[in-house]
Amino acid sequence: VRERLRAAGVGQGPGVALGSGDDAAITLHDGRAAATSVDAFVDGIHFRRSTAPAASIGRKALAGALSDLAAMGAEPGEVYVVLGIPVDMDEAACLEVLGGIVEGAADWGVTLAGGDVTRAPVLLLAMTAVGYADSPTDLITRSGASAGDVVVVTGELGGAAAGLMILDRPELGAGLAPQIADALRRRHLEPAPRLAVGRALAGHRARAMIDISDGIAGDGAHIAAASGVLLEIDASELPLDAGVASVAESAGLDPVELALGGGEDYELLACVPSDGLEAATAAVADAGCRLTAIGTVGPGAGLEILNATEAAGSSAGFDQLG
Amino acid sequence: VRERLRAAGVGQGPGVALGSGDDAAITLHDGRAAATSVDAFVDGIHFRRSTAPAASIGRKALAGALSDLAAMGAEPGEVYVVLGIPVDMDEAACLEVLGGIVEGAADWGVTLAGGDVTRAPVLLLAMTAVGYADSPTDLITRSGASAGDVVVVTGELGGAAAGLMILDRPELGAGLAPQIADALRRRHLEPAPRLAVGRALAGHRARAMIDISDGIAGDGAHIAAASGVLLEIDASELPLDAGVASVAESAGLDPVELALGGGEDYELLACVPSDGLEAATAAVADAGCRLTAIGTVGPGAGLEILNATEAAGSSAGFDQLG
Repeated sequence: VRERLRAAGVGQGPGVALGSGDDAAITLHDGRAAATSVDAFVDGIHFRRSTAPAASIGRKALAGALSDLAAMGAEPGEVYVVLGIPVDMDEAACLEVLGGIVEGAADWGVTLAGGDVTRAPVLLLAMTAVGYADSPTDLITRSGASAGDVVVVTGELGGAAAGLMILDRPELGAGLAPQIADALRRRHLEPAPRLAVGRALAGHRARAMIDISDGIAGDGAHIAAASGVLLEIDASELPLDAGVASVAESAGLDPVELALGGGEDYELLACVPSDGLEAATAAVADAGCRLTAIGTVGPGAGLEILNATEAAGSSAGFDQLG
Repeated sequence: VRERLRAAGVGQGPGVALGSGDDAAITLHDGRAAATSVDAFVDGIHFRRSTAPAASIGRKALAGALSDLAAMGAEPGEVYVVLGIPVDMDEAACLEVLGGIVEGAADWGVTLAGGDVTRAPVLLLAMTAVGYADSPTDLITRSGASAGDVVVVTGELGGAAAGLMILDRPELGAGLAPQIADALRRRHLEPAPRLAVGRALAGHRARAMIDISDGIAGDGAHIAAASGVLLEIDASELPLDAGVASVAESAGLDPVELALGGGEDYELLACVPSDGLEAATAAVADAGCRLTAIGTVGPGAGLEILNATEAAGSSAGFDQLG
């Protein structure tokens, strides 16, 4: 359906520089650029009301929406929320969801500018996030990667997947120090959008960028497809969150699987020219985050994972082929 | 919950001139103004997949979203759509919903700039509509009505409610000429946003404006509350769609009830200074629509319906008291 959306003419029109298919659509206003992203969060699909605290549902939905702006390098502006409330949810729980959004908006410097509340069969949130840049060329799409670029990733990976695993099956976290287990659970329940880091990368020659919401294999393949290049990612270079290896071992998995296919880490994956790597790394460090080179861009198509076990390689799924 | 949304600080922030609580939020960009509205449309609540053609669901959701921009007098710009698709809905039906949106976007001059597609328990659409004006003062809120103004309404009322009634119970339309019955059904299934008419009113001294999505009694009460005035509406002056009286009679209702409480007419209710009525009426006629004076604005609070039967008066519900 997404492909058909595009074929149906979505994203083509006056004032629209870039339509659906990137992290956000770009519109132009007297030279300035706005990036707008819409995202749905539905109980049973994107979260589970039965296990997630109400406030964390709201905060996480906002984080996911803002992560799309981070991936463009946009300055966040306003957020609009549609709340669909099921009949079995009382007003107190509803206000907790809203409170999570309000708290996140304050933490991340965005204005909750409007919304709509309706009945729905299950709890659902539809978030619209709007960010800005002085010029559309300041916004980083998925399509600018070139052969010779270095593939970089912010922060650490696999933590959100491992956190979900120990929330579902606490015994998998039995070997972890309590603060490590707690950090992993929070990595799943309370992700933070990499807004400052995204702007730092955008300002330091990132040529293509995406946020990691589906796992690095799938999201890397999106950059490869949009840029018309091959991404070669070295599995042995992937930075893992503390505790990921232990949880994976308890579950009989390769930890690299959690980094490649786990998703919801909300880190940023970018391609930078090789002579810009040092400056980009320093700028990201100034924004309080680590940047790791994990691969290279070459001519060709799709995404290849080097130095992975067979299990980890196959966990990346068909998206690996771009 | 809507009240609490506001209390929680929704709509307050840098660059936001008007937050939640009006038809759309207004943001400022180098002097220009953007109006952004978000709306949810959920199967079983806002439409019924069992009786509405798939294309008309998409088109009507877009019309509802754009009607909020019409009520601000904004020039429509872009639309973003979140589609939630249930498992029992095949790709063809899904593309029909989308086709209805694409067709409406072409008819109404907006760009479908982006979207998100997700699984959901029932069909749902969340629409974000963005419109523009040269200055925030060109956008008409609900709060500018003054004692002495004339209350005006565009087009005709009650048709959407009557159309739904004969879709549900065809026998209620037995006394109608086929083309009248067809027009009423289309009034329900295929409303059109009053975009040009809204801009005409905004350009001709409309001081407060709202679109009629919940019935004139409820929506009029919103203007009364936001403006701090009393709206007195003369039931005998309400312009009714052809066939509304016949359908109401068949159902044993007062036709005025359908105009006051029926909702979904997507006409515009506005307050204009009395010495501006003639020019506003001419401007609306130039936009191809009728404008009818239906009441006056006075000091006080709430909304009063004059010359209504007891049944029609009570159908307006508690909202009548503002």
